[in-house]
Amino acid sequence: MSLFQKHQPVLSKAMEALHARTFYAAFPEHPAPAVYGETADADGQAKFKNYLNKKFEELKQTNAEVWGGQEESPYLQEPLKILYPLFAVSSLIDNSKKAFHQWRKISAQDRAGILMESLERVKKRFFEIAYATMHTTGQGYMMAFQASGPHAADRALEAIAAGFEELNRFPSATLWDKPMGKFNIQLNKEWRAVPKGISLVIGCSTFPTWNSVTGIYGSLITGNSVIVKPHPGAILPIAIFVAEIQNVLTENNLDPNSCQLAVDTFDKMITKELAEHPDVKLIDYTGNSIFGSYLEALSGKTVFTEKTGVNSVILDSVEDVDKVAANLAFSVNLYSGQMCTAPQNFYIPADGINSPTGKISFDDFAQKFATQINGLVDNPKAGPFVLGAIQNKKTSERVVESEKIQGKVILKSRSFENPMFKNARVATPIVIEVDSSKKEIFGKELFGPIALLIKTKDTNESIALAKEMAIAHGAISCAAYTTSASVHEKIADEMALAATPVSFNLTGGIYMNQNAAFSDFHVTGGNPAGNASFTNPEYVTKRFTWVGHREPVKA
Amino acid sequence: MSLFQKHQPVLSKAMEALHARTFYAAFPEHPAPAVYGETADADGQAKFKNYLNKKFEELKQTNAEVWGGQEESPYLQEPLKILYPLFAVSSLIDNSKKAFHQWRKISAQDRAGILMESLERVKKRFFEIAYATMHTTGQGYMMAFQASGPHAADRALEAIAAGFEELNRFPSATLWDKPMGKFNIQLNKEWRAVPKGISLVIGCSTFPTWNSVTGIYGSLITGNSVIVKPHPGAILPIAIFVAEIQNVLTENNLDPNSCQLAVDTFDKMITKELAEHPDVKLIDYTGNSIFGSYLEALSGKTVFTEKTGVNSVILDSVEDVDKVAANLAFSVNLYSGQMCTAPQNFYIPADGINSPTGKISFDDFAQKFATQINGLVDNPKAGPFVLGAIQNKKTSERVVESEKIQGKVILKSRSFENPMFKNARVATPIVIEVDSSKKEIFGKELFGPIALLIKTKDTNESIALAKEMAIAHGAISCAAYTTSASVHEKIADEMALAATPVSFNLTGGIYMNQNAAFSDFHVTGGNPAGNASFTNPEYVTKRFTWVGHREPVKA
Repeated sequence: MSLFQKHQPVLSKAMEALHARTFYAAFPEHPAPAVYGETADADGQAKFKNYLNKKFEELKQTNAEVWGGQEESPYLQEPLKILYPLFAVSSLIDNSKKAFHQWRKISAQDRAGILMESLERVKKRFFEIAYATMHTTGQGYMMAFQASGPHAADRALEAIAAGFEELNRFPSATLWDKPMGKFNIQLNKEWRAVPKGISLVIGCSTFPTWNSVTGIYGSLITGNSVIVKPHPGAILPIAIFVAEIQNVLTENNLDPNSCQLAVDTFDKMITKELAEHPDVKLIDYTGNSIFGSYLEALSGKTVFTEKTGVNSVILDSVEDVDKVAANLAFSVNLYSGQMCTAPQNFYIPADGINSPTGKISFDDFAQKFATQINGLVDNPKAGPFVLGAIQNKKTSERVVESEKIQGKVILKSRSFENPMFKNARVATPIVIEVDSSKKEIFGKELFGPIALLIKTKDTNESIALAKEMAIAHGAISCAAYTTSASVHEKIADEMALAATPVSFNLTGGIYMNQNAAFSDFHVTGGNPAGNASFTNPEYVTKRFTWVGHREPVKA
Repeated sequence: MSLFQKHQPVLSKAMEALHARTFYAAFPEHPAPAVYGETADADGQAKFKNYLNKKFEELKQTNAEVWGGQEESPYLQEPLKILYPLFAVSSLIDNSKKAFHQWRKISAQDRAGILMESLERVKKRFFEIAYATMHTTGQGYMMAFQASGPHAADRALEAIAAGFEELNRFPSATLWDKPMGKFNIQLNKEWRAVPKGISLVIGCSTFPTWNSVTGIYGSLITGNSVIVKPHPGAILPIAIFVAEIQNVLTENNLDPNSCQLAVDTFDKMITKELAEHPDVKLIDYTGNSIFGSYLEALSGKTVFTEKTGVNSVILDSVEDVDKVAANLAFSVNLYSGQMCTAPQNFYIPADGINSPTGKISFDDFAQKFATQINGLVDNPKAGPFVLGAIQNKKTSERVVESEKIQGKVILKSRSFENPMFKNARVATPIVIEVDSSKKEIFGKELFGPIALLIKTKDTNESIALAKEMAIAHGAISCAAYTTSASVHEKIADEMALAATPVSFNLTGGIYMNQNAAFSDFHVTGGNPAGNASFTNPEYVTKRFTWVGHREPVKA
């Protein structure tokens, strides 16, 4: 049985799911022993520890120039001292070019089989990836497991399914038979899905697998060779993915350089040299807007970006204000606001929020929100695990800086104790009241646990500001609370024009931060927060070109 | 019966044809009286003559600033003196913005019905459009009828069908039902295909409808409002399309400004002002590479271009050299080489072309080719009608200039008599032998009836040069003649990597210049000849953004 045959049932389900957009997941999201094995967690932790202080030797790439690596654990505030092979850009490109001409000739079915097999291998390593993710990104255990493991694998599968669908969208050959009256002109026509070439996938420090696997698998399924350039602070999680892809390639007598890992260090970054190389045709990027916009402007490249945005919450009217405050408090606490989907700007009318029990004043809501944040932070069984640690020192500094913002500090950021990691770099959300005239303050992304409560004239101003911010600065998510059907439609329509998806009236165990594979398009591509969307058809069609040849049928 | 219901059978067939890519045409390509009516031709000619020397008053656009128009007939070398309403850019934009918010809210079905109805109306005007096309572009009668009438309408229908398919690709609403163990999280989700805004379609002087209707209909079906900026030398053909779209809009109580005509004059072009306007989000363009590349680099716009290219013919081995020479002679004579798909560079091995009767030397082929060109030109029943007239004086000058090219002139360009138009601006193809080392000569587009026979070392060099030219300068078409299966595959593979479709071994009544709707992707988008393709999925998906909203199911 070929790898394609082995994985075809799941691929078929995934392709159906792409269109149905109802719930679908191929990889179980809970790290339950019943699913993953009784010793899976302990084994994974042990494997992670075993990586520390030594060379990562799982890659099939040969002839490293030197070994290096500068990852640091936000929980320990100590270097991991894992060394990866470093390569010259020229040799990465040469290897990729060579592998490209082999990989592009593999059938779409065989590519799908190989890539899906690699995901099955990775599934066995979800726990070590989880610990690797914790100790590079600062995510809590549960998020680290889910986001870097099953959710990332589902997003990768989604890209494989989308690519496979597009590669089969048009016939590989057909007879074109044109009646001309007394005779027919007959042409044999054929169409080839021609991959663009070398694909560079640039990772980020907070979601090293989730944000990279779509580009990696999207480019590979469509026949491109891939160079994965991880963030120098978050390498190990994606290194394990790449190692498994290389394992399956090698086992199938294929050049492992179809997917290379291109590690660099903070003192000698190779991203620009790779991106500007004329042989690099595709670039996937997650990170800050300045570098993302630089990449988008490179000529002769097809570039897919997820940059930054200013996410809004529009508070108009609620059924149960405490449930609303609790839900939003969780959203800002989750991974200490370090998600691209975390809310930043909360628009609240000056005369308060409507509710069945009357108006809830701005100040009352602010207080309830602060109380809910504190309640979660101070719950020792939840707080440390929900908030995790701060990936980057600059984020901690930004939180401290933000106290100086012109406005009223409603809740100060503070520290808390993580029972497992005494030395963790932590910060709870700061909540600041800002006037709606102060666009210079809230009209930019303040990455990290920073929430701004913005007092507006009314909901119309709230909507107008949320829309304006999304159009001017980008937005990946938006939450809105309203019990009015007309306000609901107004928000839905106005935010749609700003290419921003809205989560309405979320309470309970579902949050605006969450985006599910096979259902939620992640980033729309329609505002400055990014030009690509996981995983719409364009996300894969732009990775290859349809070329049709034709020839008369022989008489 | 709604317009959608009326046109649904044809739309369904068109959507099937998009995928089957076998022969399909909704509009009969022959101007046969049995199809279009006994008096259709004479009536169309009379209507065209009736446009001359007066105002074109069919548009529903009001408050023209002034009336103007500078079209000239290449057949008469006299101005047509048709005056069109001219508008300030600001009022075009204001009108378009207003119309956008009405048009975007019309359902995809209603939009499809309205647009298909407009094509049915245009069908009744194919003959006047044909004469309008002849007397603006210089095309012969048959090409003018086919390219501007039925073939353009088929391409427009293709764009409607592709857009309609994409708009219905994902459900407008679904229930997302996620099992969480003891309970399920249920979200109502909905997806909106949000149009990008104002779409600017910039026409060209040689194919004023064929190259513009895909962008017009592609943008309209996806909910954008459109401003059509025709080339100031070729307005009337597309003005008739726009008038019919406006008629159907008005009859359906919709703002006709959803599709405006924005005429300008050579002395006061408004293209840049329109293109750079921040409210213009989509740009379709056909024309020279310098302006096309300027448009592609505009930030904040989605740009679809068809620019220029260097089309190649690779001659390796033939079954019947005379048939080959005849076919290629027709391709360079057709509309005097003014098609974007016309061949320019003919690569012939120095030691000749293989054939069943032995090698055909370079010089022998050159002579046969020249003889076939002359034979067609000098056939009074065919030549004048196939060659038509030269649209632009600069093209005539370029042909004269090309005599000075460093090479051997095999056939001089000359004049010929058009029996119907004594004053027509004409030029027959010039054929020049050029050495394969002279890339500075053949490494650029020489628009018009200019054919270069390039002596190469062997077929491998021919292929390498054709590929190099396509990658460096773009290519829209390529012809290859080979009887060897391995050479065939090598050409197919190498030219595919250069994103160039190859027509193999064409003889008889089918030519490399021709691209059929619903089957041939026109321009691949994968080389510098253009970044867009008629009509692949991207051609329509890039005109709107998928935005998904969600909300918990009420308990």
